[in-house]
Amino acid sequence: MFETDNLGTANYTVDSALEDYLNVFPEENLKSEYVDVEDSLSRILYEDILIKKDYPPLDRAIIDGYALKSSDISHTSAIKPVKLQLISDTTGEARSVLGEKQAIKISKGDFLPANADTVIPSLDGTEENGFVKILKSSSPGNCIAGRGEDLRSGEIFIRKNRKLRPQDIGGILGIGYRQVKVFKKPVVTIIPTGNELVPIDVEPGIDQIISSNGYVLKGFVEQLGAIARISAIVRDDLNQVKNAISKALEVSDMVLVSGGCSSGDRDYTLKAIKELKDAKMIAHEVAMRPGSQILLAIVDNKPVIGLPGHPVSSMTSFHVFGKPVLRKLAGTPRSFWQDKKDTIKLDAFLAKKIASPEGKEDYVRVRLLENEEGKITAYPYTGKSSFLSTLVKSHGIIKIPAECTGLYEGDRVEVLLF
Amino acid sequence: MFETDNLGTANYTVDSALEDYLNVFPEENLKSEYVDVEDSLSRILYEDILIKKDYPPLDRAIIDGYALKSSDISHTSAIKPVKLQLISDTTGEARSVLGEKQAIKISKGDFLPANADTVIPSLDGTEENGFVKILKSSSPGNCIAGRGEDLRSGEIFIRKNRKLRPQDIGGILGIGYRQVKVFKKPVVTIIPTGNELVPIDVEPGIDQIISSNGYVLKGFVEQLGAIARISAIVRDDLNQVKNAISKALEVSDMVLVSGGCSSGDRDYTLKAIKELKDAKMIAHEVAMRPGSQILLAIVDNKPVIGLPGHPVSSMTSFHVFGKPVLRKLAGTPRSFWQDKKDTIKLDAFLAKKIASPEGKEDYVRVRLLENEEGKITAYPYTGKSSFLSTLVKSHGIIKIPAECTGLYEGDRVEVLLF
Repeated sequence: MFETDNLGTANYTVDSALEDYLNVFPEENLKSEYVDVEDSLSRILYEDILIKKDYPPLDRAIIDGYALKSSDISHTSAIKPVKLQLISDTTGEARSVLGEKQAIKISKGDFLPANADTVIPSLDGTEENGFVKILKSSSPGNCIAGRGEDLRSGEIFIRKNRKLRPQDIGGILGIGYRQVKVFKKPVVTIIPTGNELVPIDVEPGIDQIISSNGYVLKGFVEQLGAIARISAIVRDDLNQVKNAISKALEVSDMVLVSGGCSSGDRDYTLKAIKELKDAKMIAHEVAMRPGSQILLAIVDNKPVIGLPGHPVSSMTSFHVFGKPVLRKLAGTPRSFWQDKKDTIKLDAFLAKKIASPEGKEDYVRVRLLENEEGKITAYPYTGKSSFLSTLVKSHGIIKIPAECTGLYEGDRVEVLLF
Repeated sequence: MFETDNLGTANYTVDSALEDYLNVFPEENLKSEYVDVEDSLSRILYEDILIKKDYPPLDRAIIDGYALKSSDISHTSAIKPVKLQLISDTTGEARSVLGEKQAIKISKGDFLPANADTVIPSLDGTEENGFVKILKSSSPGNCIAGRGEDLRSGEIFIRKNRKLRPQDIGGILGIGYRQVKVFKKPVVTIIPTGNELVPIDVEPGIDQIISSNGYVLKGFVEQLGAIARISAIVRDDLNQVKNAISKALEVSDMVLVSGGCSSGDRDYTLKAIKELKDAKMIAHEVAMRPGSQILLAIVDNKPVIGLPGHPVSSMTSFHVFGKPVLRKLAGTPRSFWQDKKDTIKLDAFLAKKIASPEGKEDYVRVRLLENEEGKITAYPYTGKSSFLSTLVKSHGIIKIPAECTGLYEGDRVEVLLF
């Protein structure tokens, strides 16, 4: 059993704890799978996609007009126009071939006849009686996108670690792939613990609570592109908690234990993890609030995270530790702009001051209001306001760094929307 | 057959066309359905969720400590401490009752014994031999979240039109709901048209193209929370296009026709829509580029949109017209912060100047690069770079208003990530 020096001390900073924890799960260990391209939306590429052949495969018009041979109009001018015979357009069926002094009416995007080398825009030609009158000459390649101009065989089309967007799927199908290799979706089992919990189908007694944290975590897990399983509720009992974690590990890549993470008499999560084979604790107290009593463990080389049972602490701890770990297990998208899409932030002005304990990172939920001029104000929830209502009323969270003792009314803050 | 004055004129602005079109589909016409709360992630609430009963149902400790009767320690001070007998904690099983001069050890979040009215923090008590020594008095309600303090029966818990987040699901389950009424997911049928198209399973001939636009549109439709169906490829034939649209309307709330929207000889989408029963055209040319030749129609009170076949124009037109319409059909989230999550924008500096035609809204794809200081530069794709590669290489789009004739290098631009 390996234990770090920081274990169980409130001085373990969020950043150090997270860094230590993430380092345990290298990307090389992640699994991949092939999926049909059309089913790969939001999946993360495991390897580069290479271009198989030139695109376009032929020359193509980039404007509506007339395809012709530039040699047929080489000495053309307004005073010396040339008339070309229009032949019928068979594009889409078979490739046309132009005869002497012939042209073909062509639409933007259509392939050129085999021996045409230029396109004259519709506006520069006048049709009459099956002929088109052209008033100026044109050089080869005019208004044409040449073969291979867009994509060249052998080059990288999309780099690995991209989270695939709809247009990426279109592109990958367009260059002829039917399957792509993506990171396998991690399976996450969520274990709700606590004698006070009842399943969502049961009417709770006066001292019971509906087990809802698991569904919150499930939603976040699914938003990160992973598969979530919620186990049956486990009572506050060492063996039951231990067995539940073992069972979950058999079928999961990550386990979240909800509740039982404090150091009270009925808190068994830490004890249970410690008794498991191949268990390592990384942290069981971190300098943050809410959610300081988070358990970061590795069992069987998989992350096992103990989250506080309080809904707000549970969600906060998951955001701070669970999300980055799960993002890594799912195959982290590498681009900063994909990061911006996954963690949406906005600037706001604080509506009232917040005191914050020095030495702890403080996460404060805020409710946002936008006035008519578009100014956004953030109203913090502090003190007693820590139950279900603020979970649904708050729109985001602000982080107050450990060294900061508070923020003032009017301060500009960055809100992470959740 | 109704036709607006602006029909078929290039002067019809994007904003007017969109406003005219959106007005045709009032929210009152939208359908709703009940779904299990745990399956309602990202669904949009059709009606307010009301609180059924007070929460917490009982008084609850908000800190670890000792629950007791304030009257037992009313005259307590450091020089006149009081010793209370600790009785065993049965919370989670049945509610305890305190006898004379008794206290109970309580964890944060636990319900108080029936006759306790205050909680003394752990730090302010000293335990010895089954007793706890208290050094100061306390008023009733100290460190307690009272019954109904968080939620009051009859009040609104979440307003309608919210797009449900994981924490909303937890909250709704927590207050005892098993189902919620949400807007029904619109069904969107996408019809790919064009003689040059082959299905994704077929190796294209030299003058054929893999039909991939439909899959791009499908991805966007699904990201908006709707259900997408892709029909078989339809050839450039008036009756086939007409029949395909009719068939699609039987089972869809919206139809997207991909291709055949220009005014060329082989373009049948406009003609087909005009021949359908109860068809109204709102626009078939709009002052924008790319994608000016978009068809906005209403058939059988449902939106039928014709999108250009060119991949870039198709995606741009869908962003400008398809998305807002589909968002409305899906039940638009009303909050500005949900809007910010659905349309993610960021500021960047333009890498080189762009000329833009006056009188047309111009949509330019950009590739983003972030330097080490976090400065983001947007590289525009213009000119011939209009094929598959820019679809996958671009990270977002910037809009140049109709009255603007261009932007300069270094200009600050707002990029809509897609």
